[in-house]
Amino acid sequence: METLEGRQSVFAALQARRRRMQMILVAHGSHLEKLEELLALAAELGVPVKQVDRAELDAMAHGSSHGGVLAIATPLPRLNGDQLLEVLSKIDQPPLLLLLEGVDDARNLGFTLRSAEALGVHAVLIKKHLWDFDAVEVARPASGAYERLPLVQIETVEPLIQLQRRGVNLIGCIAGARQTLYESDLAVSTILAIGGEKRGLSGAVRDICDRFITIPTCGGPSSLSLSHAAAIVMSEAFRQRKS
Amino acid sequence: METLEGRQSVFAALQARRRRMQMILVAHGSHLEKLEELLALAAELGVPVKQVDRAELDAMAHGSSHGGVLAIATPLPRLNGDQLLEVLSKIDQPPLLLLLEGVDDARNLGFTLRSAEALGVHAVLIKKHLWDFDAVEVARPASGAYERLPLVQIETVEPLIQLQRRGVNLIGCIAGARQTLYESDLAVSTILAIGGEKRGLSGAVRDICDRFITIPTCGGPSSLSLSHAAAIVMSEAFRQRKS
Repeated sequence: METLEGRQSVFAALQARRRRMQMILVAHGSHLEKLEELLALAAELGVPVKQVDRAELDAMAHGSSHGGVLAIATPLPRLNGDQLLEVLSKIDQPPLLLLLEGVDDARNLGFTLRSAEALGVHAVLIKKHLWDFDAVEVARPASGAYERLPLVQIETVEPLIQLQRRGVNLIGCIAGARQTLYESDLAVSTILAIGGEKRGLSGAVRDICDRFITIPTCGGPSSLSLSHAAAIVMSEAFRQRKS
Repeated sequence: METLEGRQSVFAALQARRRRMQMILVAHGSHLEKLEELLALAAELGVPVKQVDRAELDAMAHGSSHGGVLAIATPLPRLNGDQLLEVLSKIDQPPLLLLLEGVDDARNLGFTLRSAEALGVHAVLIKKHLWDFDAVEVARPASGAYERLPLVQIETVEPLIQLQRRGVNLIGCIAGARQTLYESDLAVSTILAIGGEKRGLSGAVRDICDRFITIPTCGGPSSLSLSHAAAIVMSEAFRQRKS
């Protein structure tokens, strides 16, 4: 079982219907009018709601940012490569996928999921070890996107190669690539591969990339964080797809 | 006096020469070869370096991410409107400025400063109350940019109006504006005004904006955080200026 914290995460999880919700806990004295929508959906889905003391909630929660709402639910399902193909078969446009390697921090992962959802990414592919992050720490900055965006867990590059065989371009975002993101066609079927700040993309992924792109910056001592670089590249892909 | 934590912040502060550095503290047992450049610069600038026990450093520091290096320094100078005009008079291109309102978190501010430096912003304008953030918490994610990027403290919109009189365009970034950032000329003298997630831009700033732009997104429940929206807009301004 996993704990979900905060009105936004719990409501997003109810709406997404991807987890089995065991119970919702609401602190005594919460402003119920703010929870009206959430409680109505919980009733509709038959999820029991229990009022408890705030101290009890605090004891179950990671921090104090739950705002009086917690839920107990089964963990979020993670797609495998085959399930991803099924998701993609239902999309009526060239898929836009994001592959993340070497994210160093749950919060940065959460923000990246949030941007990915806003910028039209269909699924995010994550190497297995990233799943060690605390789900609550990822979910909070993701602002609901953690519940809604398909997340695919991969252990090797094999699923990437399978996607390439189906015509998806694996595009590595690295510093110093000759082509900029603006010169690259990102409206075709695309996996944007972005690596962490310490080691960048792994050799295994670099070896199979179809091409590489870079974000023009001032250089020198300045740099972009992974989540901000990702936002810029996804935004350009979204722009190309809209125009 | 302020405490600076971590090799990167201390080295950036030494290089930027914008603060008076009283002393650098290095934990016994630190890998001095990694600090060679920093210690050489400290010696050149006549900043005393003292070796202390790690426990003593830990007691002075906010967290454990200092990596054995701390510095004691005067606070970072904040420019006023007149000093900003002096900075701008030395730039040989149309200025690109960033105005932030309603940032809710020191870390998001730090990341935004980092992106701003990488994407060619000449100075960041911040309303006074944002200075209440803990400097160490801002500096860490800023990755040195906090020490290098000119920061301007404003209390009213008067400095913005003065900049407008000198031909600088005040461009408000808001959800739902008719023009997208891609349709707007950001290569001219520009202040990009970005508001926090809760309240957006203040009425006082909106009232004097020359025009408004928006970042196309999927909409629905999805959204971009302030620091990621800022990165996308600054990146487009940088692209237009390069091309």
